[in-house]
Amino acid sequence: MADVKSYSSRPVLTVNLTSLAANYKYLAAMAAPAKIGASVKADAYGLGAVVVGRALYGAGCRIFFVAHAGEGKILRQAIGAKASIYVLSGNTPQDTAIFFGSKLKPVINSLTQARDWVKACKPVKHAPRTALHFDTGINRLGIPPEEAEIFASEKPLLEALDIDLVMSHLACSGEAGHPLNTKQLARFKKVAGQMPMVPLSLANTGGVYLGSKYHFKLVRPGIGLYGGKVTDNPDAEKVKPVVELHAPVLQIKTVKAGETLGYNATFTAENDMKVAIVSAGYADGLPVNLSGSDKRIVTSARLGKSRVSVVGRVSMDYTILDITDYDGFVELGAKAVFFGEDLEKQSAHASMLNYEVMTHLGARCRKIYVNE
Amino acid sequence: MADVKSYSSRPVLTVNLTSLAANYKYLAAMAAPAKIGASVKADAYGLGAVVVGRALYGAGCRIFFVAHAGEGKILRQAIGAKASIYVLSGNTPQDTAIFFGSKLKPVINSLTQARDWVKACKPVKHAPRTALHFDTGINRLGIPPEEAEIFASEKPLLEALDIDLVMSHLACSGEAGHPLNTKQLARFKKVAGQMPMVPLSLANTGGVYLGSKYHFKLVRPGIGLYGGKVTDNPDAEKVKPVVELHAPVLQIKTVKAGETLGYNATFTAENDMKVAIVSAGYADGLPVNLSGSDKRIVTSARLGKSRVSVVGRVSMDYTILDITDYDGFVELGAKAVFFGEDLEKQSAHASMLNYEVMTHLGARCRKIYVNE
Repeated sequence: MADVKSYSSRPVLTVNLTSLAANYKYLAAMAAPAKIGASVKADAYGLGAVVVGRALYGAGCRIFFVAHAGEGKILRQAIGAKASIYVLSGNTPQDTAIFFGSKLKPVINSLTQARDWVKACKPVKHAPRTALHFDTGINRLGIPPEEAEIFASEKPLLEALDIDLVMSHLACSGEAGHPLNTKQLARFKKVAGQMPMVPLSLANTGGVYLGSKYHFKLVRPGIGLYGGKVTDNPDAEKVKPVVELHAPVLQIKTVKAGETLGYNATFTAENDMKVAIVSAGYADGLPVNLSGSDKRIVTSARLGKSRVSVVGRVSMDYTILDITDYDGFVELGAKAVFFGEDLEKQSAHASMLNYEVMTHLGARCRKIYVNE
Repeated sequence: MADVKSYSSRPVLTVNLTSLAANYKYLAAMAAPAKIGASVKADAYGLGAVVVGRALYGAGCRIFFVAHAGEGKILRQAIGAKASIYVLSGNTPQDTAIFFGSKLKPVINSLTQARDWVKACKPVKHAPRTALHFDTGINRLGIPPEEAEIFASEKPLLEALDIDLVMSHLACSGEAGHPLNTKQLARFKKVAGQMPMVPLSLANTGGVYLGSKYHFKLVRPGIGLYGGKVTDNPDAEKVKPVVELHAPVLQIKTVKAGETLGYNATFTAENDMKVAIVSAGYADGLPVNLSGSDKRIVTSARLGKSRVSVVGRVSMDYTILDITDYDGFVELGAKAVFFGEDLEKQSAHASMLNYEVMTHLGARCRKIYVNE
């Protein structure tokens, strides 16, 4: 028996912090003179908000966005007291103490949130400042037009909110030609004009690529930092991949012609095959939709310098790769690589958004942060 | 302004431990006189292996299966020294110390793993016992037929492995009539006959429903414990739902006819609508495939006693519900409920396996364990 290189059965997610910082700088340069803040909600899109937050802080980022107060608390502990952390869901009654304790700025999405916040702040010295988030056409969270008028007219409320940012969110920024972009831009300018003079922010990653008209004083990308491409803009192609899923080979076996592979026997070996069983499955974020059946081979992984097809159904913990025609020796512990530069292609193969695939990758894998 | 009930923006995953224990007992009764072990890999299918493991231990379970040594270590700390914990991936070189330190039993899937394990155990007193896992037709991880013969003939190796379980895994147990079931059964009996006299195990949840021929000495369900239905058996319908995703209403707003909802403007309001923005999205395991577009409303959530449609694209943190025809007042903080008894239906709506959907639910939600 040859000496076996040391490896674990647990799959690894590599997060390249050098590429992350490069993407931050790329987007910052594109947005300049606007400032750049980072969306690190959902545990930094699954990549680990603590380490990612610190790396972005190290790259110069001082403004962060999370979805929930609890996420803000964790980030605050990671990056220290100096950065601004905005909570996109706004203040909710049960979380008020976290906002105060961790100096989190609520993104106010409604009159109710505004009034609740002001009330909660009354007994507090040095309450955090706030952002106002106007809904200009995504019709999701955010102050709706009819409430915007009330905000504009209630000067004492505005003053008590102590706002330091006015923002909105684009619905179609991934499609440069979509008419909703210019419509949201116009609506944003109109509503912002009725507010106190504070910095404005409209652009997510897609908005950065839409050009300087959309940048205002602050852009706040998420997916682009993490190497995710936004579809129809060539500049979006230039961000560097950040995340790869490495699935170690646990076993290599021969499968006889006529045998089936994996759950529900969806793939039949036409001839004798050689397969590698790798240790990553849908619990590690590898979508079942990447399974290869008799009807269709959907995708492949990188193994060394080659590509090898996924055959049979992706299961919770393991995936089967066809190495019949692999040129060379496959060692146990060798890593089959998913995503990375293939993130968009493989997400499309799974009929999923790259965002959604990315967000599920961090759940079980051991994360290894790479500095080049 | 009415007093707002206290709520957080963070979504909640409720895990009903009473139903979990009931499912354990239901499957145990069906399998008796065979014993029952529990598959708690992948953090107990996303529901939290520590609490789920303890609850199953409390219900009488003394045999557990995890995928990786690291999962076994966490489980061991949770449930104490007395239970058997088998690691399905088997021993991998980097994890050997964890096996010894946490008294984990490797499931041996190959000659290489067998020989590595025996070598590693040489200097160790009281090494854990092991299981042998034969591949009888899933052609995934497991000892292949040609290696089975070597195991049968190498008596010193078998003795050194100190096995206390011989197992295999069914590929098509969810389809009672699938010919691979009887084929695997026959192959399992044949290979087990060549092994030392130790307990045998073949049945996952689906295998329990296939009847006593498949039960041997130990069944080892996973999905059934967690309330997941296995498709074509009526007995599978009797397990109780265990897991619900509760998404709090953060905002209610009116959307004018002609406006679009959510990312990429995939849904257009034909008439004026009332919508609720709830705090859960694909980072919480709500699949983007549940989005409602102009082409098709895919699914609905429970809100109070009614059902309300998902409209627009499910985004990372938020989802939009159509409450135009909702009969009654929707309070902020009210919970829209996904999955539970709808797990199979909603997974099908998303073109996903219930297993896959369940596994992604625990990533960000606050878990609340319910004892009735």
